[in-house]
Amino acid sequence: MSAGEALRDGGARGAARKPGGNPALRYIDTVLRGCGQVIFMNSPATGLLNLVAMFWGAFAGGTTLAVASGSLVGALVSTAVAYPLGADRDALRMGLFGFNGMLLGAGIPTFLANTPVMWTVLIFAAAVVTVVTLATDNLLSYRRTPGLTFPYVLTTWLVLLAAYRLAGLQIAGTPPAMLASPAQSTGAPIGIFAFLHASLVSVSQVYFVDNAISGAIFLVALVIHSRWCAGLAAIGAMTGVAGALLIGADRTMILHGLWGYSAVLTAPAIGCIFMKPSPRTLIYCAAATLFTVIVQAAVSTLAQSAGVPPLTFPFVLATWIFLVARRPSDIDVTYVSDL
Amino acid sequence: MSAGEALRDGGARGAARKPGGNPALRYIDTVLRGCGQVIFMNSPATGLLNLVAMFWGAFAGGTTLAVASGSLVGALVSTAVAYPLGADRDALRMGLFGFNGMLLGAGIPTFLANTPVMWTVLIFAAAVVTVVTLATDNLLSYRRTPGLTFPYVLTTWLVLLAAYRLAGLQIAGTPPAMLASPAQSTGAPIGIFAFLHASLVSVSQVYFVDNAISGAIFLVALVIHSRWCAGLAAIGAMTGVAGALLIGADRTMILHGLWGYSAVLTAPAIGCIFMKPSPRTLIYCAAATLFTVIVQAAVSTLAQSAGVPPLTFPFVLATWIFLVARRPSDIDVTYVSDL
Amino acid sequence: MSAGEALRDGGARGAARKPGGNPALRYIDTVLRGCGQVIFMNSPATGLLNLVAMFWGAFAGGTTLAVASGSLVGALVSTAVAYPLGADRDALRMGLFGFNGMLLGAGIPTFLANTPVMWTVLIFAAAVVTVVTLATDNLLSYRRTPGLTFPYVLTTWLVLLAAYRLAGLQIAGTPPAMLASPAQSTGAPIGIFAFLHASLVSVSQVYFVDNAISGAIFLVALVIHSRWCAGLAAIGAMTGVAGALLIGADRTMILHGLWGYSAVLTAPAIGCIFMKPSPRTLIYCAAATLFTVIVQAAVSTLAQSAGVPPLTFPFVLATWIFLVARRPSDIDVTYVSDL
Repeated sequence: MSAGEALRDGGARGAARKPGGNPALRYIDTVLRGCGQVIFMNSPATGLLNLVAMFWGAFAGGTTLAVASGSLVGALVSTAVAYPLGADRDALRMGLFGFNGMLLGAGIPTFLANTPVMWTVLIFAAAVVTVVTLATDNLLSYRRTPGLTFPYVLTTWLVLLAAYRLAGLQIAGTPPAMLASPAQSTGAPIGIFAFLHASLVSVSQVYFVDNAISGAIFLVALVIHSRWCAGLAAIGAMTGVAGALLIGADRTMILHGLWGYSAVLTAPAIGCIFMKPSPRTLIYCAAATLFTVIVQAAVSTLAQSAGVPPLTFPFVLATWIFLVARRPSDIDVTYVSDL
Repeated sequence: MSAGEALRDGGARGAARKPGGNPALRYIDTVLRGCGQVIFMNSPATGLLNLVAMFWGAFAGGTTLAVASGSLVGALVSTAVAYPLGADRDALRMGLFGFNGMLLGAGIPTFLANTPVMWTVLIFAAAVVTVVTLATDNLLSYRRTPGLTFPYVLTTWLVLLAAYRLAGLQIAGTPPAMLASPAQSTGAPIGIFAFLHASLVSVSQVYFVDNAISGAIFLVALVIHSRWCAGLAAIGAMTGVAGALLIGADRTMILHGLWGYSAVLTAPAIGCIFMKPSPRTLIYCAAATLFTVIVQAAVSTLAQSAGVPPLTFPFVLATWIFLVARRPSDIDVTYVSDL
Repeated sequence: MSAGEALRDGGARGAARKPGGNPALRYIDTVLRGCGQVIFMNSPATGLLNLVAMFWGAFAGGTTLAVASGSLVGALVSTAVAYPLGADRDALRMGLFGFNGMLLGAGIPTFLANTPVMWTVLIFAAAVVTVVTLATDNLLSYRRTPGLTFPYVLTTWLVLLAAYRLAGLQIAGTPPAMLASPAQSTGAPIGIFAFLHASLVSVSQVYFVDNAISGAIFLVALVIHSRWCAGLAAIGAMTGVAGALLIGADRTMILHGLWGYSAVLTAPAIGCIFMKPSPRTLIYCAAATLFTVIVQAAVSTLAQSAGVPPLTFPFVLATWIFLVARRPSDIDVTYVSDL
């Protein structure tokens, strides 16, 4: 059974709510669901608000218009390509072939200069990310394990690593490649306002946006579809920020949300999306979220030695480990629709 | 079903054409098929011509006698070791336990100094590559995914990385390990003759030979067994060179065939060997071949930071992704015999 | 069938010998078996002697009290956590959820400064290593492949890599991150006494102890449960030392046992634990053990470029390759109880 098939029930229900009509409108609805699935929501309204938050960041500061537009282009292309590639129709209809494209489309203009070659590569890579998604789902389906954002991480890393060899792609935003060196002790404790601000920015940094109001809009977009998921995402952000503070991570990076964004995704993934919520699940979720902070640090070290950002791989690795450790019958990919 | 079993039909037919006789002759026939299987050909004539092209490069320039001899030794050893290891007899008979040994035997003397210790390690590693091939086939068989040249890549990388710690193995040809740094814009466009020359050299660089006439002999060796495969290999080479030029890769490396050799393998692998040729397949093949150029750049960046060459891993990664994305029933490993 | 289930027979027999009684005593018995399973022994006596060897090293020199205590804490925590996580009871009873915790608990204080934050992270990581063990077993069970010490390697690497970003964890023992550079030819041959000493120290370095008497105690701990395993571990150590000497590894590191400790584990793993002992198996085992020396060198190069030690990953990689290359029916995880 493919991940797509596992999701069929939820998909069928989603499809039932929007029973068809104009193909163009159905495609737009599907793309918007893809923008919602970045944070597990099979909801066009969540997706639309997510796009609003992106463009708010581009308007008010914290990201650029290229990043916001790229995220839309990425979702449009990766979703469109899924039809001729024969993706499972129910999974497709739920937006499961859009969220990797959305993130890739935001990530590439964040780190590469805004040139025609960059846009050409972005569109091509957004098409390829659907192939990578199909491959990932096929590899993992025998354990009912979701591919998460791995296809986006792999494809974006390949494009950024490639840019170091291709003068047509100009590196603009990646930190220079550096060998691992001991951490420097950093600064004074932070106040409660700075703590909450860092947590909101952590939510927006899932999407490469460094803006607390965008973070609040992303949370509202969650609340309208799933309070459980919204609550766990907020707790994940605060756990990531608090854990990073306690164990001595770089203060400036924490304030810019770069230590919390992976935990924003791990907490709902383990706590309510892929496992049935329960007190036992919440303890398990807390361990996975704290572990994500250590993985965030480890992946940052490795990625910087290669000259690339960690993206959401810390979330992917921690969540995969905690899900694969369960029996396949413990993994449920339909709860999101029920919340 | 193992990859070997999947290939049984083709193998049985191949065996039928050469129904046996002298065991020594059968072994030589098998080794030659292994030299043909580097580029997917279950043909002793292709294998023999491939060896001619290697020794032509050693004679005329573009590689050394150690590399050409190493490729023969590698194929002899890896094939011989497959018998006592209990490899599937039909797969063995088709040369599927020779091509990784051939490439490893060419690769090690390309990058390590020609000493008795190097030859001892080469022979040992050519035996181990058969163990790695069995392990790779076993891991991937549940998805009917071929191991491709991954066993050669992994084993050769291990030997080259090991050489940095072992004074008995002197590194002679690997570029020094370097952190990723931004690409330099490079030079003027090239003419049509240089373009075709670079494409032919790309074919010969599959085998670590930097010689256009060798490249032409490798193509002739393909034409006599499969025009489809020869055509797609040539188109793959030109796509690799053209893609690298357009996106600003280093001009000197392009002219030495170092940007096209992976695409030489991806194009026939997707276009006619592991999928049924069709217009849809050709579009899919074009995307996979272009993607191989990006993967070539990305793997080069990562590999150089470790001090090793990318070998054919870009082909392996791109082809695996594009094959695993299909349903197992879409993957066919018997077309090569029918072409 | 999970690895745990595959081991059920052996486990049942082990359980039969100690039919229950006081739960606290049973837990201590299980933890001691875990300390024995580092080297494949389902024996509380072996585990107890292993701990004696650790504390001997802390007392006589060659390691610290933090490392010896950490190994005990790691085994206690990782075993305890396995109960609420629902691990297979027979596998748990055999100590299969203790040995990764023991090694992680020894490894972290070897490389990080002895601070309260380090101990907090050690205890948390020892709990997580049980989750990683469950995930590894689930992933590999379809090929009846044991997880070996991979969970310990992965989790310890993540903690050490994380320390480069977290000022709360002070790096104390890892060699600085360095790009690969050519090996230096090193020194004169060594005498038979130095050779045997280096071999004994190689045994103790499995546990991060640099002490020949500890090495001898570790061997005695093996002899009392399995002479085959003790003999192969000793031969593995000598093969690792001899191979490293012949091929030009750094003399000082050889004398400190850092070239033999992986081979100490590969030799019994292939020779008598996971395959049925036979003359064919011994030849296969010799090849795997020699290959481990090359993998040790390769992994050292890669790991040093990331700023971490190779740990026992060379053993894991070589043993996985040589086991996965066999048919699942050739892999037997119950021989250890019969030896």
